[in-house]
Amino acid sequence: MKFGGTSVADAERLTRAARRIVARAEEGKGVVVVLSARGKETDRLIADAFEISENPDPREMDMLLSTGERISCALCAMAIRDLGHEAISLSGSQAGIVTDTVHTKARIVDVKAHRIQDALDQGKIVLVAGFQGVSTAKDVTTLGRGGSDTTAVALAAAVGAEVCEIYTDVPGVFSADPRIVPGAQKLDVVSFEEVLEMAASGAGVLQLRSVEYARNHGVTIHCRSSFDDSTGTYVVPEEDTMEQPMITAVSHSTGEARITLLGVPDSPGAAGRIATTLADANINVDMIIQNEPIADGEPADMSFTIPADDVRLAKESLEPLKTELNLRGIVADEEVGKVSVIGAGMRSHPGVAAKVFTVLGENAINIEMISTSTIRISVVIPKEQVPDAVRALHTAFELDGDDTILAEQPFSEKGA
Amino acid sequence: MKFGGTSVADAERLTRAARRIVARAEEGKGVVVVLSARGKETDRLIADAFEISENPDPREMDMLLSTGERISCALCAMAIRDLGHEAISLSGSQAGIVTDTVHTKARIVDVKAHRIQDALDQGKIVLVAGFQGVSTAKDVTTLGRGGSDTTAVALAAAVGAEVCEIYTDVPGVFSADPRIVPGAQKLDVVSFEEVLEMAASGAGVLQLRSVEYARNHGVTIHCRSSFDDSTGTYVVPEEDTMEQPMITAVSHSTGEARITLLGVPDSPGAAGRIATTLADANINVDMIIQNEPIADGEPADMSFTIPADDVRLAKESLEPLKTELNLRGIVADEEVGKVSVIGAGMRSHPGVAAKVFTVLGENAINIEMISTSTIRISVVIPKEQVPDAVRALHTAFELDGDDTILAEQPFSEKGA
Repeated sequence: MKFGGTSVADAERLTRAARRIVARAEEGKGVVVVLSARGKETDRLIADAFEISENPDPREMDMLLSTGERISCALCAMAIRDLGHEAISLSGSQAGIVTDTVHTKARIVDVKAHRIQDALDQGKIVLVAGFQGVSTAKDVTTLGRGGSDTTAVALAAAVGAEVCEIYTDVPGVFSADPRIVPGAQKLDVVSFEEVLEMAASGAGVLQLRSVEYARNHGVTIHCRSSFDDSTGTYVVPEEDTMEQPMITAVSHSTGEARITLLGVPDSPGAAGRIATTLADANINVDMIIQNEPIADGEPADMSFTIPADDVRLAKESLEPLKTELNLRGIVADEEVGKVSVIGAGMRSHPGVAAKVFTVLGENAINIEMISTSTIRISVVIPKEQVPDAVRALHTAFELDGDDTILAEQPFSEKGA
Repeated sequence: MKFGGTSVADAERLTRAARRIVARAEEGKGVVVVLSARGKETDRLIADAFEISENPDPREMDMLLSTGERISCALCAMAIRDLGHEAISLSGSQAGIVTDTVHTKARIVDVKAHRIQDALDQGKIVLVAGFQGVSTAKDVTTLGRGGSDTTAVALAAAVGAEVCEIYTDVPGVFSADPRIVPGAQKLDVVSFEEVLEMAASGAGVLQLRSVEYARNHGVTIHCRSSFDDSTGTYVVPEEDTMEQPMITAVSHSTGEARITLLGVPDSPGAAGRIATTLADANINVDMIIQNEPIADGEPADMSFTIPADDVRLAKESLEPLKTELNLRGIVADEEVGKVSVIGAGMRSHPGVAAKVFTVLGENAINIEMISTSTIRISVVIPKEQVPDAVRALHTAFELDGDDTILAEQPFSEKGA
């Protein structure tokens, strides 16, 4: 069972989480719980660090930030004991989560779960501080954004858990963002591959790395609400999904920008120089499009999308290439958005792309870039048309449900 | 170097402490620093715990409270790195501080300082989270009140430090509380034995356990101000004090109460029953006086002093003895205070007690109880007369200095 920061933000919520944990234990289950830092605790610690230093040392940042989850776990263990159950809190290190030495975004390299197993054998509920581990150099590390989900999945794999329940402030994974599409439906089952595509396309409910880890280690995730007992969304291997609707979800993102390089020479190596420059600056490039030159050997334009936060950095990094490659200019457009249609059933239904383009065309939405995977079609369109595009595609692919029920569901972005 | 909570309470103070640490390192010294939790951080965590549980589990309390000192150390390491020095923060566990398994008041059983030594050998400044360790059962423990001082002394002993500098918000150990005695003087040198008697008699500047540890392991303590560079007070073995004034200090305490049991039977075992009852309730008894019975076999009264906070508990615990021992009553008096005159020179000057009683008599102060050690004479008197008694004794034993200098010194209770 993993609870996010909002689920333990104050004494009342933390006690509610404790009651849920105890209820599960009283079903006769062995329970391992992973908790995030409370509410705004991590933000407070980060602010403290930047008050001291403009460029805090990563090792010390990890030492600092790892305290937040320990506080949550110690307090929750107290609450569980008051409910009459034995409980023990463990730091990431005590729980045996061994990582590499890359501070602030360490990767788990091993889970030595014997201490957890011993505590379970003694009938204790085990609370583990999420988002952290101990490096092979014996330093405290943190796993980066969404790290607590990864902790939960890794522990579920290590102890052979029946299910990894991720409790959050939304009722599950939706067919679209309910804030934009009133008829968006909670999905009962979704495949790892679909959720991965959704996470990569802007749907914030489950973190990419935790889903990858779950897929690689065969962990079933149940993503559900921390506010009620209703069933959420099960994330399972594709072969375990009972049916494969052609399209499962429509996701979107408005956090990207498009950079266009004008007049890129049609010579071997030019594209490589550009990609290397961006990689060296640690900028994640999503889609790339290179126009065909008018004639062989003529320069052409090249566009790519990057996180909007990296626009300034990208422009600075690419500036030297202007003279080196004799570019005509570098243009950034932040008024773009990305809409993606995702579904494992797409593999056996070749007409999906055509339908996407037709629906958008009928709604007078101009497609600026296109990229696809075997189970996803993404388009870049003007930012202000994103909500219309999502709604139109959601309806066209018959994903709309009864909106009167869903209008009552809370929905907000999930915390780390 | 050990800095208390007020010395790292905000970014400005923490940076000032970092500069002091760096200055010491730039003298070519190897530096190990012990820090307390920032300002009110520990109070905040305790409040969080009591919001969740009326009776928080001690193991979880330790997990919770140990985070405060880690935060201080991580932030201070960042500040030191910004000043151009290598620094590394370590938790109590990482620093090799091994304790017994008594949560919330663990005792250090071993210090495995190899990781500290390695870091020193690499030219790093080492920051260690005070007040905590790891138990022989691999759980996080805390050392109880004043624990960070004990951490500092234990590490000084383990690495063979030249001196253990305790930085605090007072300039050193004083001949009396300057808030009561304007002419109180900062002492340049004081013996372990004297400081132990002072700590036990209400002077708050150094913690009893840390001084005991320093005495047992031959660690020189330099207790000094974190606000300026002036020399503070050196705490050294008695044989190293250059001269032994008859009286070193007058200390006082108003945190005690007197309990009187009326009509205690003059039979073997009665006093034992009472002492055992109090010990079982974990109440620390300071002075005990049993009046002589009027005639052999007649009941007499028995009085003892205990911490004022324990009065209710003491009365409840002793209640059953009322019928068992046929007592006439149990009376508590919280309007008492204790004044102590301390000095290693007392051993060779037998007239001190007589002088104390004479001075108090001349000032119309009624002595209610007396207790002594070889270097201390303590009296219990009415609480409202404590300031007068301290001033009169301080003057009578010629401890008064020039009050114009000392009036400028800050003085307040030292934090944990």
